[in-house]
Amino acid sequence: MNDAVVENAPIMDTDFIREMVRQMRALDSYGVWEGKSAAEILEPLVLTPERKKEIPVVGDPDEETMARVKAFYNAISTLIEKECGLMAVPMMVLSHEGFGRVVITVGKLVVLDRSLRDVHRFGFASLSKMKDEADKLLSVALELIGTYSKVAGL
Amino acid sequence: MNDAVVENAPIMDTDFIREMVRQMRALDSYGVWEGKSAAEILEPLVLTPERKKEIPVVGDPDEETMARVKAFYNAISTLIEKECGLMAVPMMVLSHEGFGRVVITVGKLVVLDRSLRDVHRFGFASLSKMKDEADKLLSVALELIGTYSKVAGL
Repeated sequence: MNDAVVENAPIMDTDFIREMVRQMRALDSYGVWEGKSAAEILEPLVLTPERKKEIPVVGDPDEETMARVKAFYNAISTLIEKECGLMAVPMMVLSHEGFGRVVITVGKLVVLDRSLRDVHRFGFASLSKMKDEADKLLSVALELIGTYSKVAGL
Repeated sequence: MNDAVVENAPIMDTDFIREMVRQMRALDSYGVWEGKSAAEILEPLVLTPERKKEIPVVGDPDEETMARVKAFYNAISTLIEKECGLMAVPMMVLSHEGFGRVVITVGKLVVLDRSLRDVHRFGFASLSKMKDEADKLLSVALELIGTYSKVAGL
C-alpha cells in the first residue's frame, strides 16, 4: 500500500474523490475489489516520484491504465453534469501507443478538450494533486457553460 | 464492378467526391490501389439493395469498413475546414461490434455529432446518395458555425 494514500483523510469525503471511487468500482465487473477500501482502489492512480521512476519513459498502456484514464474523465463529466444540470458526454480515443484525445461535450459545446500522451504513465503525485487537476478542469468547463449557455443547451 | 458507379459521371468532379477519393487513397499505405480509378476506389461504399441483402444484419465490421467510415467523416471535416477557414477536427469511437459515435469540432463548437450503429453495413444506395448525405451534414455544420461563430473561433 502506498503511503501517499491515507484512508480517513478529509479528501476522501469530497465530491470528486467519491465519484472517482464510484467510477473505479464500475470497472470491477467481476467483484474482485468488493472488499477493498476506497483508498486501496485509488492507490494505482497515485504515482509518487519513486514509483514513476520505475515506469519506462516509452511504453504501451495496458487495459487497466486506459480504464483509469477513462474513469478520471468520466468522473469529471459526471460532476459537470451534476453542477450544470445538462447532460455531459465524455469521449476518448486512445491509440495502443498511449496517444489520443479526450473531449467532453455539453449540448453543442466542447467543455473539455485535451490531448493525451504517455498514458502508460498516467497518475498523480498525490490524491490531492489529482483533485486539484480535476477541480481546475471542472471550473474551466463550468465557466464555458456559463458563458455559452445557449450552445450548451442545444 | 458495381453498375451503380460510373467512371465519367459529372458527380465524380464534385468537391465531396474528389475529397472522398483522396481520403480513400490515403488509406492505401501499400499502394495496392495505385492503378485503380476513382470509381473503382469508391465502389465498396455503394451498397445496392442486392448487395446489402448479402450482408448479415448482425455482424462485426472489419478494419476496411471502419476505415471507410472514417474516410467519409474525414472528408466532411476537410470540406468544413475549406468552407469556413477554421480547423475542423474529427473524432470517432467505434466498438468492435460496430457501435460508436463520431463528432467533428470547430473551436469549442460541436458541428457534427452522430451515433454510429451497424457499421458493418456502412454504405449508400448510390454515389449521389452519399454526396447528398455529406452535403446535408456539411450545410448543417456550416450553419452552426455561422450562428455561433464566436464559439467556433475559440
